[in-house]
Amino acid sequence: MLRKAAKKFSFFPLKDSYGTTQLVVFSKDLPEILDLMRSVTPESTVLVQGVVNARPESQRRPVPSGDVEVVVTSFTLLNPADANLPFMPSDVHNLANEDLRLRHRYLDLRRLVLVENLRKRSQVAHIIRTVLHDEGFTEVETPILLKSTPEGAREFLVPTRLTASSQDDKPPSPLFYALPQSPQQPKQLLIASGAVDRYYQIAKCFRDEDGRKDRQPEFTQVDLEMAWVSWGDHNPRNDITATADSHEWRIGGREVKDVVEKLIRGIWGKVEGIQLPEVFRIITYQEAMQRYGSDKPDVRFGLEIQDITYLDLPELSDLKPSSDEVLEALIIRSSATEDEPFLRATKELRAEDIEAGIKRLDTVPEEWVDAGLRFTAGGTIFLAKRKRIAELTNITSLCASLLQGGSTPLGRLRLALSNSAQSSGDLTLPLDPHFLWVTEFPLFTRADEDKEFLAHGRWSSSHHPFTAPMWQDVQKMHEGRIGEVRGQHYDLVLNGVEIGGGSVRVHDAAMQEYIFSNVLQLNETEKSSFNHLLHALKCGAPPHGGIALGK
Amino acid sequence: MLRKAAKKFSFFPLKDSYGTTQLVVFSKDLPEILDLMRSVTPESTVLVQGVVNARPESQRRPVPSGDVEVVVTSFTLLNPADANLPFMPSDVHNLANEDLRLRHRYLDLRRLVLVENLRKRSQVAHIIRTVLHDEGFTEVETPILLKSTPEGAREFLVPTRLTASSQDDKPPSPLFYALPQSPQQPKQLLIASGAVDRYYQIAKCFRDEDGRKDRQPEFTQVDLEMAWVSWGDHNPRNDITATADSHEWRIGGREVKDVVEKLIRGIWGKVEGIQLPEVFRIITYQEAMQRYGSDKPDVRFGLEIQDITYLDLPELSDLKPSSDEVLEALIIRSSATEDEPFLRATKELRAEDIEAGIKRLDTVPEEWVDAGLRFTAGGTIFLAKRKRIAELTNITSLCASLLQGGSTPLGRLRLALSNSAQSSGDLTLPLDPHFLWVTEFPLFTRADEDKEFLAHGRWSSSHHPFTAPMWQDVQKMHEGRIGEVRGQHYDLVLNGVEIGGGSVRVHDAAMQEYIFSNVLQLNETEKSSFNHLLHALKCGAPPHGGIALGK
Repeated sequence: MLRKAAKKFSFFPLKDSYGTTQLVVFSKDLPEILDLMRSVTPESTVLVQGVVNARPESQRRPVPSGDVEVVVTSFTLLNPADANLPFMPSDVHNLANEDLRLRHRYLDLRRLVLVENLRKRSQVAHIIRTVLHDEGFTEVETPILLKSTPEGAREFLVPTRLTASSQDDKPPSPLFYALPQSPQQPKQLLIASGAVDRYYQIAKCFRDEDGRKDRQPEFTQVDLEMAWVSWGDHNPRNDITATADSHEWRIGGREVKDVVEKLIRGIWGKVEGIQLPEVFRIITYQEAMQRYGSDKPDVRFGLEIQDITYLDLPELSDLKPSSDEVLEALIIRSSATEDEPFLRATKELRAEDIEAGIKRLDTVPEEWVDAGLRFTAGGTIFLAKRKRIAELTNITSLCASLLQGGSTPLGRLRLALSNSAQSSGDLTLPLDPHFLWVTEFPLFTRADEDKEFLAHGRWSSSHHPFTAPMWQDVQKMHEGRIGEVRGQHYDLVLNGVEIGGGSVRVHDAAMQEYIFSNVLQLNETEKSSFNHLLHALKCGAPPHGGIALGK
Repeated sequence: MLRKAAKKFSFFPLKDSYGTTQLVVFSKDLPEILDLMRSVTPESTVLVQGVVNARPESQRRPVPSGDVEVVVTSFTLLNPADANLPFMPSDVHNLANEDLRLRHRYLDLRRLVLVENLRKRSQVAHIIRTVLHDEGFTEVETPILLKSTPEGAREFLVPTRLTASSQDDKPPSPLFYALPQSPQQPKQLLIASGAVDRYYQIAKCFRDEDGRKDRQPEFTQVDLEMAWVSWGDHNPRNDITATADSHEWRIGGREVKDVVEKLIRGIWGKVEGIQLPEVFRIITYQEAMQRYGSDKPDVRFGLEIQDITYLDLPELSDLKPSSDEVLEALIIRSSATEDEPFLRATKELRAEDIEAGIKRLDTVPEEWVDAGLRFTAGGTIFLAKRKRIAELTNITSLCASLLQGGSTPLGRLRLALSNSAQSSGDLTLPLDPHFLWVTEFPLFTRADEDKEFLAHGRWSSSHHPFTAPMWQDVQKMHEGRIGEVRGQHYDLVLNGVEIGGGSVRVHDAAMQEYIFSNVLQLNETEKSSFNHLLHALKCGAPPHGGIALGK
């Protein structure tokens, strides 16, 4: 792709997908070539033959081919570009509008920054495959054209021209496939078969919904599943009491954790040149919600949520919470250096922003929440909210619709303050990536709006109905203390963004059956769609678990 | 997965996805464990701890873990299998019927032969990716949800719940995606962009049609495309006359050929332990049709088609072909050793089989073909057919419906004889794989039935409308000698099966436009669906070509 240099006509920059190489033409020797090269339109495709010379020391540039120039001996115009292109991709300082660039994506892709994205993605995929291959994983393609599943409210349906073979004199019925939202069931069936102990796939997934910020109708996941994973204590039959430390991995699936950490370390090491720690931080769901008001906390900055129920301040005299309530707050002290970045953001925050940040819970019964409170005491700013203890500090009675995107009102306000402080330049986040495992999620949830039409007031699975309860909570499940049961589920969070999630699955058919019938209270029709999975477990499926990265 | 040994109760075979390991239990030491192990149902999942010992020399078996046995110290039943399984996957000598096995695929997958298939596929994919990565290819995912294309008679259509944003007061219209039959257009647009010089993808493709022998609704291709491929002489502007040798690579895209050969050599070397030749055999379409009556000839055996037009035999006196006809035959001499395997097959061939093999051309005008002729002269058997010269010996006026699956009647008869001779044990084909490139296909074809509803009597592209003509034939194309134009298309054939095909593409927008308008005579509506591609070429696309392997 050729562009003409403005000043000195005997130099031409030659662009390819790696960068730019300087061409030199001696006008005396090859006047015809020079004329031809001067007449070529920008972005044309050319074939150049010549002699590669080292450039003078002073003219070398620290880019690919920056040290050399090519003295042209022959020149062929392979494909001339139109003189009137919709925009010039080389003009990176003056980008065309997005619509135009998307319409002519093949032209926009000539920008090196986009090329780099493509290359990096390819490089990452190759690292993932190499690491997993070395770890003994078998890559298996699961089908794209599948049977529709009951959770499939947002599945794409694919009618086929073929019809089900007509039996006797019944008219043939039309057939439909469904595109998978994830290969969850095929991969569990595969592992249940015992055919491969370690499966992976870079899998296409589909979701028929509006393109939200981080959602697309078609997306790709690194999907993996492993047989013989532990159930939380490396010996599922030993009744070891869990440690009290909420920064320990107290659930099963440690084998999955280890492989994923190795994978992530490999990618960041090779692609970004960043050495990540040998093990990633762990936090329980409960602690994440208490300290950060989020199930995917951004731990790159402080501003943690404090319990001020028993704080002795005159400003709180009217606000004493009742016995089943607590008062929580983000506290910004004007004297503390670690609070400094948030001081301006907090002061500039308008009352309606606090309201918006804290409240915005139209779908929740009035009495569950309290309006945001803002007061200053001795130079310290309090952004407070009263909440029921049962609401979030405990796993009990979790109501999914209380959370927006997994965050409480104060959790959202914390992020809003951080964003504001970053914009104003007051807050600079650390550059190194902050990976975090969140574990011990509530296994069952009162359905949020999205799923209520399926749940009809019943308990729903927080993630999916195949996630195993923590063995410490199995007894509670059988006693009907459903809201207290924690699952062997784990999310991987990077800088406050959930980048993957997975779990140890139920491998015991009786337990799976119990969850379907007694906890989720599925009727026979709903249950029948899982018959194949139940039967696969009955055939002696090994314990298994997995994860999907990317969404 | 545990099975009990019948005779000696203190030995148990333990099966996993790699094979079987012998467990040993000393009944005196651990009577409880022994009781437990004896009560476990076959195919259950167990956890065993023990000491690995070398087996006595005489008892070693040449299989994985065949040299060792495990002396059990502890035993846990992880997941008991149902006592009434639909079938026992371990009973490989008495396979359940296919329906039952497919319904319980997760159980059937416990058979090691199926496990091996999964593993080999994964291994092959990894080799492919590693070779292409080392060759500088970038893996790029093209979309699955695409716009429908005009060739899309067999596309799956995917309705979405979303609707096109309603403009003004028009009602919103429903949206449809289409699933790609191949990523042909996306990959050409990608390469046209210049973003990556070498693209590959192991791509899912979809075709809404009945499951024929080698067709499925969903299949996987190794898809690759390269920029800067040659146009047949490594310097597209030099007018080098083609060599007369039909075993030379006289078209462009040699770069694609080289990469594919490296890929295939890598796979066969590593997976099968077979050293393939450095370069594969090449044959032109014309020669393949003349000698083998097939565009994907099986060259593992002889029995080539002979021209007997001028053979002086009394039996032929009544059959003298007219000036525009030739008489072709498969000749089996009873005295020749190389014909021996086919002698019995030929003699046993019933008249109706010959008819069926040779004729079966209902859709072709009567005068184009002649019934099969079978006669014996001096002990030599002739299976003959009269054909018009224009029909197949020349590229001219090729009628796609003359061919069934790319074979002429005599070509099919040749294969039928080979199959028959193999079944009877008379013919043993060589074990080493016979790879073959077929090149110089006719670029345009009179449509076969499948496509006639699109062609309406016009010329069709033999493969797709983006394939470049051989530069030697560009002049003919402009002169309207459409039937004589050969394309820069190449098929890779293995043992008589087409395993891949590709071409050098048109990169010149004016030539592509000429093919659309003057050769294929597309109307404006038909042409408009290619506007994006035409415009991408006009932006200075590099010359490019590629291939797709697997179908």
